[in-house]
Amino acid sequence: MATAEARAKELENHHNDCLVQLSNPNIATMKEDVLYHFSLSTSTHNFPAMFGDVKFVCVGGSPSRMNSFINYVAVELGLGRPGDEYPNICAGTDRYAMYKVGPVLSVSHGMGIPSIAIMLHELIKLLYHARCSNVTIIRIGTSGGIGLEPGSVVITRQAVDACFKAEFEQLVLGKRVVRSTDLDEQLVQELLQCSVDLSEFTTVVGNTMCTLDFYEGVLMCLCCRARSSGWCPLLLHGEGQAGLFASCPRCGHQKHRDGIFSLCCHVQYVWPPSGRGVCHPPGPTAGGPDQQPTRGAGRVPTETTAAGGLLH
Amino acid sequence: MATAEARAKELENHHNDCLVQLSNPNIATMKEDVLYHFSLSTSTHNFPAMFGDVKFVCVGGSPSRMNSFINYVAVELGLGRPGDEYPNICAGTDRYAMYKVGPVLSVSHGMGIPSIAIMLHELIKLLYHARCSNVTIIRIGTSGGIGLEPGSVVITRQAVDACFKAEFEQLVLGKRVVRSTDLDEQLVQELLQCSVDLSEFTTVVGNTMCTLDFYEGVLMCLCCRARSSGWCPLLLHGEGQAGLFASCPRCGHQKHRDGIFSLCCHVQYVWPPSGRGVCHPPGPTAGGPDQQPTRGAGRVPTETTAAGGLLH
Repeated sequence: MATAEARAKELENHHNDCLVQLSNPNIATMKEDVLYHFSLSTSTHNFPAMFGDVKFVCVGGSPSRMNSFINYVAVELGLGRPGDEYPNICAGTDRYAMYKVGPVLSVSHGMGIPSIAIMLHELIKLLYHARCSNVTIIRIGTSGGIGLEPGSVVITRQAVDACFKAEFEQLVLGKRVVRSTDLDEQLVQELLQCSVDLSEFTTVVGNTMCTLDFYEGVLMCLCCRARSSGWCPLLLHGEGQAGLFASCPRCGHQKHRDGIFSLCCHVQYVWPPSGRGVCHPPGPTAGGPDQQPTRGAGRVPTETTAAGGLLH
Repeated sequence: MATAEARAKELENHHNDCLVQLSNPNIATMKEDVLYHFSLSTSTHNFPAMFGDVKFVCVGGSPSRMNSFINYVAVELGLGRPGDEYPNICAGTDRYAMYKVGPVLSVSHGMGIPSIAIMLHELIKLLYHARCSNVTIIRIGTSGGIGLEPGSVVITRQAVDACFKAEFEQLVLGKRVVRSTDLDEQLVQELLQCSVDLSEFTTVVGNTMCTLDFYEGVLMCLCCRARSSGWCPLLLHGEGQAGLFASCPRCGHQKHRDGIFSLCCHVQYVWPPSGRGVCHPPGPTAGGPDQQPTRGAGRVPTETTAAGGLLH
């Protein structure tokens, strides 16, 4: 709670200092900004009224998971009861789903960096148009993993690419741009403390590999290497790595560009690579593996909100 | 119709020669193959019975668009009436949606290469397990574009990356692998002929740029370059390019790996970059721009099916 109180104090002291900023000055001069993939527009929706109080944005791949998450957080915040229904703010599109309760926004982002990139781009413009301040964004999701028990939660400190480099490479205007993938250390420690307080599942802080191909980039890489060369070469390269996923680096670099208070920290459920030629995650009837990261990530908005008196 | 009849004849002559193949021999030895993101498994679903007659797979980003498409094709094939409902075969997950009518499968793939890559990976395994033969896959969707009237349909001959290179680069086992992005020329010509027969909208054959970032890779690239340097540099590089999108190259390379009869051809609605600092597609209330590509792509399965007597 001490960390949560410190954050709440910080929010109070610097409320107006940490408005969400954009690096593109042209946005401010536009008469209308259409957030197409959210089916929202500044000319048809009142962003400050709808989103001005947002302090936490929790994002994940699956729309139904983000719906479950908003239900969980609503109960934790005392703003709802189990089973309550929340409208999808992006009901006009099937690209993403968005739910809100109190200061928490829950948004789906699909699979892969390009999909989360579109969502983050429009999300940060949404927060800017809504004049939000001191916003924390947390990604929750699932991943493969090595050297950890299935069901462990990984809080990502840094994302690495398919070559284990801690950088996010992007082509902008046809030119190669490399950005940092470091995530917010204070948020990492807060999430870790939440997990210690819960004492319900194993949580580690580690790095997460992110590739552009779930099968050939992440899983086939792991398994084929394991089959052909044993695990050693991968573990040698991968020392300190914990999760393996497909949407990380984009969050890290965004932090440094837009003045978000603490942009992103990944909390991931780890499932193990199988010993067979092809890895596969749990079967279609195995049920959702997302309760642990949901509970872990849900604690930060819950504790900070309670400590900071953010609810009106 | 001549081309459709030729294809139908070819299907008849080589029915058993063109079974869908996989390049990974380990799949054949697995007791169970879980297609996790479809929520389907070879141990819980009878793939040959469910999908053995599939000859055409039409894919697109949006689940609701692919639902509309299956309705359209069902009417065209005489297998359904407008407004009929079709069950989502992937109802156990919210990652993708899948619908089927007669020999046509309609599948959503989300946004971006990683998302379509996961879908294609599992789709081709599905077709393999179902013992399908002579399968044609067509992507339908929307894109930006230059030098074309809004509403034009682009049939993609070749996909190029953010540097205008006609290649798909991937990291497999940590190593750089480059694959071709050429698409099937026969299918390109068939689609073009269908459009000529329809005579309802402008259709061109061209190349399509695909990047990993919808905003900074495609749109911002176009607009910032236009603002800072005029359109000339881009047009110089982009001579012969028509569409600009985010899921192309993956389809091209897959064709050469898995023995699919004709894997993929893109049919895209083009909307223009605006003259402002930031491009944006039609507003959230502008309605769906997808009817033209739907009609164009729908003609291939319709005509071929009718000519080949594929319906039982």
